[in-house]
Amino acid sequence: MTGSTPAIFTAEDYRARMARATGAAAEAGLGGLLVAPGPDLVWLTGYAPPVTERLTMLVLVPGREPVLVVPALEAPDAERAAGAPALTLLKWTDGEDPHSLTAELLDPKGGVGVSDNAWALHLLALQRALPDLRCSALTDALPMLRAVKDAAELELLAAAGAAADAAFEEIRKLPFAGRREDEVGRDLAGLLRRFGHSQVDFTIVGSGPNGANPHHEVGERVIQRGDMVVLDFGGLKDGYGSDTTRTVHVGEPTEEERRVHDVVRAAQEAGFRAVRPGATCQDVDRAARAVIEDAGYGPYFIHRTGHGIGVTTHEPPYMIEGEEQPLVPGMCFSVEPGIYLPGRFGVRIEDIVTVTEEGGRRLNNTTREMVVVD
Amino acid sequence: MTGSTPAIFTAEDYRARMARATGAAAEAGLGGLLVAPGPDLVWLTGYAPPVTERLTMLVLVPGREPVLVVPALEAPDAERAAGAPALTLLKWTDGEDPHSLTAELLDPKGGVGVSDNAWALHLLALQRALPDLRCSALTDALPMLRAVKDAAELELLAAAGAAADAAFEEIRKLPFAGRREDEVGRDLAGLLRRFGHSQVDFTIVGSGPNGANPHHEVGERVIQRGDMVVLDFGGLKDGYGSDTTRTVHVGEPTEEERRVHDVVRAAQEAGFRAVRPGATCQDVDRAARAVIEDAGYGPYFIHRTGHGIGVTTHEPPYMIEGEEQPLVPGMCFSVEPGIYLPGRFGVRIEDIVTVTEEGGRRLNNTTREMVVVD
Repeated sequence: MTGSTPAIFTAEDYRARMARATGAAAEAGLGGLLVAPGPDLVWLTGYAPPVTERLTMLVLVPGREPVLVVPALEAPDAERAAGAPALTLLKWTDGEDPHSLTAELLDPKGGVGVSDNAWALHLLALQRALPDLRCSALTDALPMLRAVKDAAELELLAAAGAAADAAFEEIRKLPFAGRREDEVGRDLAGLLRRFGHSQVDFTIVGSGPNGANPHHEVGERVIQRGDMVVLDFGGLKDGYGSDTTRTVHVGEPTEEERRVHDVVRAAQEAGFRAVRPGATCQDVDRAARAVIEDAGYGPYFIHRTGHGIGVTTHEPPYMIEGEEQPLVPGMCFSVEPGIYLPGRFGVRIEDIVTVTEEGGRRLNNTTREMVVVD
Repeated sequence: MTGSTPAIFTAEDYRARMARATGAAAEAGLGGLLVAPGPDLVWLTGYAPPVTERLTMLVLVPGREPVLVVPALEAPDAERAAGAPALTLLKWTDGEDPHSLTAELLDPKGGVGVSDNAWALHLLALQRALPDLRCSALTDALPMLRAVKDAAELELLAAAGAAADAAFEEIRKLPFAGRREDEVGRDLAGLLRRFGHSQVDFTIVGSGPNGANPHHEVGERVIQRGDMVVLDFGGLKDGYGSDTTRTVHVGEPTEEERRVHDVVRAAQEAGFRAVRPGATCQDVDRAARAVIEDAGYGPYFIHRTGHGIGVTTHEPPYMIEGEEQPLVPGMCFSVEPGIYLPGRFGVRIEDIVTVTEEGGRRLNNTTREMVVVD
């Protein structure tokens, strides 16, 4: 989940976010929002309950005060959340039907946006209680709800990015050859924590052929002299995410390895340069992809170019063909093209980028040249 | 999430579980099951992918081979799962519509059981693709799917319980007075890990008035001489759960504290003695609750008596009024009555109990007498 609430935000901040979300819902023709525990709820209220089968749901309806339906057992924790003064708590106890309670807060024939990660258990019970309710996932209904960050959020994201950069500067000094991927991964996790992360979401160490699997995390493979090593790591610092990738080489690379790395670097640069207000998400993907295709490696770039980041390390918007969402100042997302040569090696370079009036600004600033490690 | 797969289970075990689940679905008149990442998928396949917005879904349809719809990026990890030889992988790449792929595997007008924790994002997309599909949550459709444990599972649950008991035997030797709840909580977590847990799900240390909030975890309160302290802790060992509670007293208790503890102990014993094949879940709740009500503390027992345990520390069946599910040998659940006196103290005693032909068998075996600590 999403970890702790940054103390920087007050009840007034959360009240403003809930008002903004409710307004956006009304504009989209929705009669309300159903917000489940997870990143939406953290962002709107600062409350991060444990996720269990007991229903916790924030109900936002235009023209009414926000209501948090919450198990009585968990109400004392909910009352301590930073956003609690902006909420009415509606408590239910074991044996009561929380879905009926929630249903009574909604227009039975209205449209409602539901957190992507709300449980099917709860959604199906609400649909049973209100058969004419028209539900849509928040990503579809209000894809940009959390996408545009305010100044305080951008500062927190920049600080998380700087901490991840500091972790990279330290890890590159350590020996790679002869150590196992999972040892390097543990070092990366320790460095992220040392530089202020409260939560480490992933530490990918893809050495040699393992680097050609973009979702390989860490294994027991012993890193060899001559290996390319993809390092992709991130987590949460003060409630906001980091996510950066650099590909290092153990000893001097071959000419082919240099060429592939150069292509990815140029693709990442092209993706970054495509970032400006009014360009679309797919423009970023197209710009990066074109460089890789032109170099003849198109079939080996097997994922989208990026994803949003905020109170999670992975959220909308997505930089992918078909995503015509225009970029807006304050959006933050990764630009992370890669080339994966099966059985041989992979290269990926990733920065978090935010949209400004003038174009993109990178929140990761370590070198994108290939770093040679020992 | 649910942690690692115990190496003890083979592809044949998973094949048998999937066949059993598919058979149960057919018997329940369902055309299939949609199994999302989480405990259902771990139990059926041994595969525990990261939970992201990218669709991973196991599709079980009577009379057909199991299909795992999986992002191409994650397919190499899926192929390494212990249950993978019993599965056909249906890979999709970014830009394809995984919901249409999944929908094609289902009877458009059939009934389908969906994992409780499947994301609304995916369920709504499937409902859009198949408007006549009749979805029900797995807890409603097949509540007993994972509830009855086989011998190997019972052995793992007993081992997890024994490890939690060992942690209690160590923690009671340590000083309480003058230390903060979160320090004791860290010790508990360390002990669970020392005794073989790979994942610690909760370490509740509710001292004095904090014990009167059943869902208090740990705080910064310094434990005082004269405090009651509720210790409720558990997690996963070799993929199976532990969850036990003992309430200790720092120094000699008062007569009232002894009396309340005695009532809870008698209630826990009564709940345990109600466990036998053919009794219902609510019988266990009623038996425990009657003891507390008879003693005049009814209004202070503010939660259900228990919950199932298996590859999670918290799952169906629930020991609660209205749950008429009969108990079946092999079921495992907690029996955990409590009394909570607001602003003063709380007492809870919890064992995991499994149903045998002869009655209940406890998987936690530390003393239920009140333990006095320093």
